[in-house]
Amino acid sequence: MNRRAGRRVVFLACIAVAVGPGRLRAAEPLPSWNDGEARQSILRFVESVTREGSPAIVPPAERIAVFDNDGTLWAEQPVYFQLVYALDQVKALAPKHPEWKTQPPFSDLLKGNAKAVLASGEAGLAKILAVSHVGMTTDAFAASVAEWTRTARHPRFQRPYTDLTYVPMRELLDHLRANGFKTFIVSGGGVEFMRVFAERVYGIPPEQVVGSNGALELKTGPDGKPVLMKLAKIELVDDRAGKPVGIQRFIGRRPIFAFGNSDGDKEMLEWTAAGDGPRFMGLVHHTDAEREWAYDRTSHVGKLDKAWDEAVARKWTVVDMKKDWKRVFADP
Amino acid sequence: MNRRAGRRVVFLACIAVAVGPGRLRAAEPLPSWNDGEARQSILRFVESVTREGSPAIVPPAERIAVFDNDGTLWAEQPVYFQLVYALDQVKALAPKHPEWKTQPPFSDLLKGNAKAVLASGEAGLAKILAVSHVGMTTDAFAASVAEWTRTARHPRFQRPYTDLTYVPMRELLDHLRANGFKTFIVSGGGVEFMRVFAERVYGIPPEQVVGSNGALELKTGPDGKPVLMKLAKIELVDDRAGKPVGIQRFIGRRPIFAFGNSDGDKEMLEWTAAGDGPRFMGLVHHTDAEREWAYDRTSHVGKLDKAWDEAVARKWTVVDMKKDWKRVFADP
Repeated sequence: MNRRAGRRVVFLACIAVAVGPGRLRAAEPLPSWNDGEARQSILRFVESVTREGSPAIVPPAERIAVFDNDGTLWAEQPVYFQLVYALDQVKALAPKHPEWKTQPPFSDLLKGNAKAVLASGEAGLAKILAVSHVGMTTDAFAASVAEWTRTARHPRFQRPYTDLTYVPMRELLDHLRANGFKTFIVSGGGVEFMRVFAERVYGIPPEQVVGSNGALELKTGPDGKPVLMKLAKIELVDDRAGKPVGIQRFIGRRPIFAFGNSDGDKEMLEWTAAGDGPRFMGLVHHTDAEREWAYDRTSHVGKLDKAWDEAVARKWTVVDMKKDWKRVFADP
Repeated sequence: MNRRAGRRVVFLACIAVAVGPGRLRAAEPLPSWNDGEARQSILRFVESVTREGSPAIVPPAERIAVFDNDGTLWAEQPVYFQLVYALDQVKALAPKHPEWKTQPPFSDLLKGNAKAVLASGEAGLAKILAVSHVGMTTDAFAASVAEWTRTARHPRFQRPYTDLTYVPMRELLDHLRANGFKTFIVSGGGVEFMRVFAERVYGIPPEQVVGSNGALELKTGPDGKPVLMKLAKIELVDDRAGKPVGIQRFIGRRPIFAFGNSDGDKEMLEWTAAGDGPRFMGLVHHTDAEREWAYDRTSHVGKLDKAWDEAVARKWTVVDMKKDWKRVFADP
């Protein structure tokens, strides 16, 4: 072998070490998780239901994993991000609606009186949703949400809201899919809202997003083509008891893996736990005021109280964000 | 080489020819279709949206194909099979309901007076559906449908109803999936009914079945575990204008490929056609009284009238069952 050929062999050997399949296979899963009980419980479960010859192996078609979105896959403070979208829409529409200057909750909102807006309760919120989420085509709504995700910035982090997804949870989604799982969102958020970005930020396609949804009506658009109008009638509130309903209606198969972060996920976790065979139930506990937020039993958003007690009693996995995650968000 | 080794080489060569990848790749798609315009239009479309370098190539995530079920994937004569299931349930439940002997439509049904049952119209049908599809858990309903598909026999063919799926359409589903399509049912049939057998007979998993659906309610079962009860309230009639609504609600992405057989599929085909880029719209025309049935403009089931005119005008593919299909059902 001459010197040049020798160098070539060394070069190729280095490439083989760097990118060879053996090396890729050996990459550690969940690299942003500290190696505590939470990470280990996930790895143990996935291994037990997927390894050839495992007594608990589950056929790929039944490897259904469901994730809450707000507070589980992305942040939800100081208020649910979809509510911020709604408030931003009201502000943008205000010049066309001079009457809002004297009509609560719009008048309070436009004056920046957040306390009064919140005090208007469900009736007030319904009015805000009605003008920001209803009376337009599904295409127009999706375009508006896409524009908002590009332009709006979170007040604390000054980053797009879709930047505030949790890196460790995205790694978990990847790890499950690499092991033949089908990953679904099952969230109280609006389905038409989440579908706009779920594929880009989570790798979850629109048909695997389950959420709250309103009625749609087929109409003929100005160009003679059919359009779907978003109506005010709410058809599913995909929260609490609505989550098992949403799972059955949209997925039709009981998950074997479920992750949430609040009392709104309790019924979804119980529904998952009640099936036969191996099951994984997990909760994200927000314990990290420095990198994210710390809140649980008394929070006005993402309250975690009864579901936490149940998780402890039934030995479900509870992720301590501060202790279990090496990082929370991707670097800007 | 001795004789024994020689025989072994010939044997291995034969296996290589029979099952080698080259041979498998060369297998002709849609073998139960005669090679007419219908088959060619399907092959041309699939090739154009999947071949590397094709100007019309569509990313795999957007290769959504939707199929009506009754009359498109399986037979629907003399009446929709799900209605037969409902009537069979009423007969089985009758001993526990002596009052039905004098209450139409139950009394007519039990006397075998089909004409009077049909004359009872939607109100009568709602009563039959209420006792056969409602007031039980989703698990109990699924078990009942599974048992019925095992035991009930079609009056003309004396075979299980799930035997009466169309072999050419199952080949089409396979061909689409082999080319990276995700195949969905979008049918007026009940979603909880179809999901019981869709995976076994069509290879379509529960989460890719869209159908009419009623409300569900989370309850606690006798063993303390959660159950979902089927309620009488109908939430989606997935037929006509309901089909684009069902597609948006459950899939959230516009199909590029749609197949139906009746006026109930017209809006689904129009919704598919109205998208940008390459589109395929197809109709099964029932022209084969000998092997299946012949019916169209005046049929009480699966009426094909306006959708046919539109298909001809817009050059959609119309399958002539008698001419285009080498066989209809699999051999018993």
